[in-house]
Amino acid sequence: MPHPRPVGKDAGGFSYTRRVNFVETDMAGIVHFSAYFRYMEEAEHALWRAAGLTIGDIEKTGGWPRVSATFDYKSPLRFDDEFQITVRVGAVTRRSFRYDFMFTRGDVLIGTGSITAVSSTKEDGRLRAVDVPQEFIARLRAAAGHVGGS
Amino acid sequence: MPHPRPVGKDAGGFSYTRRVNFVETDMAGIVHFSAYFRYMEEAEHALWRAAGLTIGDIEKTGGWPRVSATFDYKSPLRFDDEFQITVRVGAVTRRSFRYDFMFTRGDVLIGTGSITAVSSTKEDGRLRAVDVPQEFIARLRAAAGHVGGS
Amino acid sequence: MPHPRPVGKDAGGFSYTRRVNFVETDMAGIVHFSAYFRYMEEAEHALWRAAGLTIGDIEKTGGWPRVSATFDYKSPLRFDDEFQITVRVGAVTRRSFRYDFMFTRGDVLIGTGSITAVSSTKEDGRLRAVDVPQEFIARLRAAAGHVGGS
Amino acid sequence: MPHPRPVGKDAGGFSYTRRVNFVETDMAGIVHFSAYFRYMEEAEHALWRAAGLTIGDIEKTGGWPRVSATFDYKSPLRFDDEFQITVRVGAVTRRSFRYDFMFTRGDVLIGTGSITAVSSTKEDGRLRAVDVPQEFIARLRAAAGHVGGS
Repeated sequence: MPHPRPVGKDAGGFSYTRRVNFVETDMAGIVHFSAYFRYMEEAEHALWRAAGLTIGDIEKTGGWPRVSATFDYKSPLRFDDEFQITVRVGAVTRRSFRYDFMFTRGDVLIGTGSITAVSSTKEDGRLRAVDVPQEFIARLRAAAGHVGGS
Repeated sequence: MPHPRPVGKDAGGFSYTRRVNFVETDMAGIVHFSAYFRYMEEAEHALWRAAGLTIGDIEKTGGWPRVSATFDYKSPLRFDDEFQITVRVGAVTRRSFRYDFMFTRGDVLIGTGSITAVSSTKEDGRLRAVDVPQEFIARLRAAAGHVGGS
Repeated sequence: MPHPRPVGKDAGGFSYTRRVNFVETDMAGIVHFSAYFRYMEEAEHALWRAAGLTIGDIEKTGGWPRVSATFDYKSPLRFDDEFQITVRVGAVTRRSFRYDFMFTRGDVLIGTGSITAVSSTKEDGRLRAVDVPQEFIARLRAAAGHVGGS
Repeated sequence: MPHPRPVGKDAGGFSYTRRVNFVETDMAGIVHFSAYFRYMEEAEHALWRAAGLTIGDIEKTGGWPRVSATFDYKSPLRFDDEFQITVRVGAVTRRSFRYDFMFTRGDVLIGTGSITAVSSTKEDGRLRAVDVPQEFIARLRAAAGHVGGS
C-alpha cells in the first residue's frame, strides 16, 4: 500500500502514497469527506512502521485514543487518483501529541488536517491518561525526518 | 432510523437518535474516531428531512461540499449504545455555513463537532461556489427550533 | 434507528426498517455493494435486541464469527431510500446457523442474502468452535415469529 | 498500496498485496466480515489497471453493477497483517462475468470469494444490461496471466 517515502530533511515529514478506492467515492463523484480521517490514520500507522513501532497490546494501552481530529478541504479527490500524505509530529503536551497532515496530488493541495492523540493505559476496561513516552515521540520524529528540536 | 425529536425551543437544536453498529467499533472496543463524521452527516440529513429539504439534483448542485470538519472527543461510545446528536445551524457567511453538533448519551457528553459546507453549482464536472440560498438557511433554522435571529 | 416491526406469523421473519445514508452511495449514484453486508448485520443485531439477547462478553465468545456471507442484487438502492429487511433463522447445524435476509423497498425486491455464523469461545486469543446453544436459537426464532418447527 | 505482482502463468491469477488498516478491525479484534468485499473490489480494480482498463464514463456505463457477491471465511485477518489476493476471471455469460478471489497470508488460507458483475449502459438514469465486450474479458484474462482458454 504504502511505498513509504521519507521526504527531504529540509521539508521534514514522512510521506505516504495512496490511491483512492471506488468505495470511498460518493454519489457526488468525489471522495466522501469522512474518508480523509481514515486516510490520516493509515499514514499515521505507516509512520509507526517506519519508526519500528507497533500498536502493541491494545488491551493494555487503549491504542492512543483521539481527543481531536480536523480536516480542511481544498480540492477534491476522485476514483483512482494517486495522492501523497505528508505527516509531521506537531505539538506535544504532557499526555498528548498532535500529528499534522498535508494531502497533495502532484502539485495540487488537497487539504490539511490533524489528529491529537492521548497516551493512555487500560485498566478494568477504562482508559486512564498517562505521560507520553519520550522515546516514542523521539522515534516518530526520527522516522519523520524532523531536524533539530522541531 | 432516526426518531427525529426536536428539542425545546429554549435549548434550540434538532435532535437525532442513533445506535452504535458493530462495524463502527474497532479492536480497541470503542467506536472508531472516523465514524463520528458519518454520524454528523446522518444528523445533518435528518435535519434536512425535518425541514422538508432534499439534496436535490446533485449533478447540478454538487451536494454541499465540505470545506472543514472537526470533532472533539470527550467520552467513548460502545457497541449498541444509543446516543443523541443535537444539531444547530452555526455561523453563516456569503457562500458557506456551519453545522454545530453535540453528542450525548444520557447525561454523558460524548463530544462536539462541526461541519462547514459551501453552496455550489456543478458545471462541466467542476464545482463553483455560489451564494447560500437564504430560504435554505431559514428552513433549516426553523426545523432546528432556533429562536429569534440565532 | 430501527422501528423493528415483526411481520405476520404467516410470513414469518423479523422486519427492520432502514434508510440509506449518503456515505453508503458511490460515484455510480447507488448504494455500494459492500454496504448490504453491513445492513444484514444491523438487522441481525436488531433481531437480537428483540429477542432480549446481547453480544455478551466478546472476549469470551468471539462474537459469532462468520463462515460465509452472500448477497444477490436485484434492484439498486439510492440515497434517502427507506427499505425493509426481513430476517429469518435458516439452517442450523451443530456448530453454526444461517440467517436469511430479504430486502424490499415498498413492493420492489432489492435483493436477498445470507450470513452463516459459527458458535465459538475465545481462549488465549484463539477461537474454538462450540455447539450452538439451543436456547439462543429458540429465542431468535420466537422473536422472528417463526411458526412450528420452521 | 498495491505492489501488483502477477503470479506464475501456471497458477494463473493476478496477485494484489494489501495490509489491514486499523479501521477495518472490530471489537472482536479481527477484520470485520464486510471488509472482505471492499478488498475484493480493490483487487478487481488493481487488475483493471494492470490490464490498462479504466472504469471509464460511469455516467454512461453504470460501472459494472454487481449481481452477486460471496465470501467464505477460513482464518481471520488482524491489524497490520499483510495478505495477498489472487484474482482470476471465472465464468463468463453473455451479459455478466465472475471474478474469483483467493486470500492468503503467507501459507495460511484466509478465505475465498467471488463477485459477479453485469455489463450495462446507463440511459436516463436507469441501467440496462448489454453484452459483455469480448475485448474487455480478453484484456483482463491476459493481465491475470490465464493460459489457453481458461
